[in-house]
Amino acid sequence: MKVVALAGGVGGAKLADGLSNLIEKGELTVIVNTGDDFTHFGLKICPDLDTICYTLAGIANPETGWGRSCESWKAMETISKLGGPDWFQLGDLDLGLHLERSRRIAQGATLSQVTRQICEAFAVEDNVLPMSDEEIPTHLFTNEGELSFQEYFVNRNCRPVVLDIQFIGREQTNPAPGVISSIQLADKVVFCPSNPWVSLDPILAVPGIREAVRQKKEVVAVSPIIGGKTVKGPAAKMYLDRRIEPSAFAVANHFKEIITGFVYDEVDFNLDEKIKGLGIETLKTSILMNTQKDRIRLATEVLNFTSV
Amino acid sequence: MKVVALAGGVGGAKLADGLSNLIEKGELTVIVNTGDDFTHFGLKICPDLDTICYTLAGIANPETGWGRSCESWKAMETISKLGGPDWFQLGDLDLGLHLERSRRIAQGATLSQVTRQICEAFAVEDNVLPMSDEEIPTHLFTNEGELSFQEYFVNRNCRPVVLDIQFIGREQTNPAPGVISSIQLADKVVFCPSNPWVSLDPILAVPGIREAVRQKKEVVAVSPIIGGKTVKGPAAKMYLDRRIEPSAFAVANHFKEIITGFVYDEVDFNLDEKIKGLGIETLKTSILMNTQKDRIRLATEVLNFTSV
Repeated sequence: MKVVALAGGVGGAKLADGLSNLIEKGELTVIVNTGDDFTHFGLKICPDLDTICYTLAGIANPETGWGRSCESWKAMETISKLGGPDWFQLGDLDLGLHLERSRRIAQGATLSQVTRQICEAFAVEDNVLPMSDEEIPTHLFTNEGELSFQEYFVNRNCRPVVLDIQFIGREQTNPAPGVISSIQLADKVVFCPSNPWVSLDPILAVPGIREAVRQKKEVVAVSPIIGGKTVKGPAAKMYLDRRIEPSAFAVANHFKEIITGFVYDEVDFNLDEKIKGLGIETLKTSILMNTQKDRIRLATEVLNFTSV
Repeated sequence: MKVVALAGGVGGAKLADGLSNLIEKGELTVIVNTGDDFTHFGLKICPDLDTICYTLAGIANPETGWGRSCESWKAMETISKLGGPDWFQLGDLDLGLHLERSRRIAQGATLSQVTRQICEAFAVEDNVLPMSDEEIPTHLFTNEGELSFQEYFVNRNCRPVVLDIQFIGREQTNPAPGVISSIQLADKVVFCPSNPWVSLDPILAVPGIREAVRQKKEVVAVSPIIGGKTVKGPAAKMYLDRRIEPSAFAVANHFKEIITGFVYDEVDFNLDEKIKGLGIETLKTSILMNTQKDRIRLATEVLNFTSV
C-alpha cells in the first residue's frame, strides 16, 4: 500500500511515525511543510523537516517532540554570553545538521537532495520530501504587522491576532521532485494532525499539489483539534482570530473540497452529522497520541478506514 | 608602561597572558595575526584571535592551548555522521562564537568591533586587535601546489614543502583601527614566540605596520625555536624547507632589520655572539612556558630586559 502523508512538525511527525511502523519500507512518502523555514545565523533552518526526520530516525527529543534527544546547548550558551539573539533555541547536535545542510546548499545542492542524504545518514527508510526546493515563506498579517512565521511563533509566542496568511512567492514555485508523482501513485493520501493554516495550507499552496490531491480517490485528514483545542500550537487560536469556532468540524470544513474522509476524536461525538453533511466519511476514535503505541494504533485505524 | 605584543596562536597567547598579568589594564595591546582566518560552513573562523581571547579570558583549553576548556563536540558528531567535512574541529562552545561573530559581520560590523565585543563579554581588559579588518589570507606555495593556511596546517598536517608564502591582497589593505597608534604610543614592542613565517610576517606585511615598528626604540622578539625545534607548529620545518638551519639565530636574523633585542633559551648558549653580531641585544633565559608561573616569569624578564 503506497501512502502519502502531508505533515507539519510535532503532531504530524507522530502520525508519520505510526504510519512508518506499518507501511513497507519505501512505500511511505512524507511531504513536509517548509513554509516555516528561515535563515538564522546564516544557516538554513527547516523546523518541520527536521522534526519529521528526527522522529522517523528515533532520535527526536521525546519530551518536546522537536529537536534531538540527549541534546546539549553549549553553542547557545556562548551566543547568550555574547549578547546574540537567543530566542530560537539551537541545540548542539541539531546545529551540526544546520551547518552541514547550509554548506551543501551553498555548494549547489537542493533541499530535497540534502534531505535525502540526511535520511540516509540517519537510516530513515521512508521518503521524506520538502514540499518544494524553493523558498515559500509563510507570512502572517497580524494586528501587530506583517510577521514571518518564526517571529510570530517563537519570538511573539503566537500572541498577535492573525488577519491573513500568505505564502510568499508561491505562484512562481514548483513542488520538489517526486511530490506530484508520489501523490499520483498513492493508494491513500493522509493529512496528518498538523495546523491547517500554517502547516497543511502551505503544502497545498505549492502549484500543482492541491490539484493532484483533489484527483485522488481517498484523502483522509486527521483532526489536529480535540474538543475545540489543539494539542500543541496555535491552530485553534487562528480559527478564533478569523472568528470561526475552533473545532474538528472547522478543520473538516477547511478541507472539504479535497478530502474524502475525516478522523476525529470521540470527545467530539456531537459533530458526526455536521461533518457527514459536508459529504465526508467519518471515523470517530481516540486520536491523542501520547505514546508510541498510540501512534501505531491511530495509524492502523487511519490505514484501515475506507472513505471511498 | 605601554606595551604592544604581536602574536599568533598558542605560543603567542602564552606570553600575552604573562604580559597581561603584569601590565596595567588598558596598557597592553595585542595585535593578532588574521592571515589564518578562513570561512568554513559559511562561518568566519579566526583561529589566532580566538586563541588569544580565550587565553586572556582564562577559558582556553589548558591541554591543547587552543579552543575552550570544558568543550563538547556534539555539532561535529552530527557533521561527521552526515559525512560532512570534519577535518577542522569545531567545539560547541567555540561554535557559538563563530556563529555570533559571523552574524555581526554579515550585519556590517568590522572584525575589530566584534573582537572588542567578544573581549567585553569575556571580561578581557587588554586591547586585542586583529592586524586588519580586511581579509589577507596567507597562502603557501608548496611542492603540492598553492594551499591556504588551514589546508596546509590542518588538512595536510604541514607535510608539503613550503617554497613561498604570500599574503594575498596585502598591498590594498589597511591595519585595523588602533594598530598603528598603539605601536606609536608603546614604550616597548614585543614579538611573542610565534611562527615568524606565518604568524608574525603576516602582521608585518600589513601596509604601515613594519614601518611603525621600525621606528620604535625598543622591539624585543622572543624566540619560538628552542634547540633547533619549535615547541609547537611548523616554524622549524619552514626554515628547513627554505634550506635555512632552524635556530634561534635564524629567527633573530629573520627580524634583524626591525628588532633591537632578542630573548632566547639558555640551551642555545652558543648563539650569543652570532646574534649580537647582528647588532641585536640579547637575553638568554628559560623561555619554555609550561605553566602559568612560567608565563609570568618570562613576561617579567621580557619587560625588564632593556635593549636600547
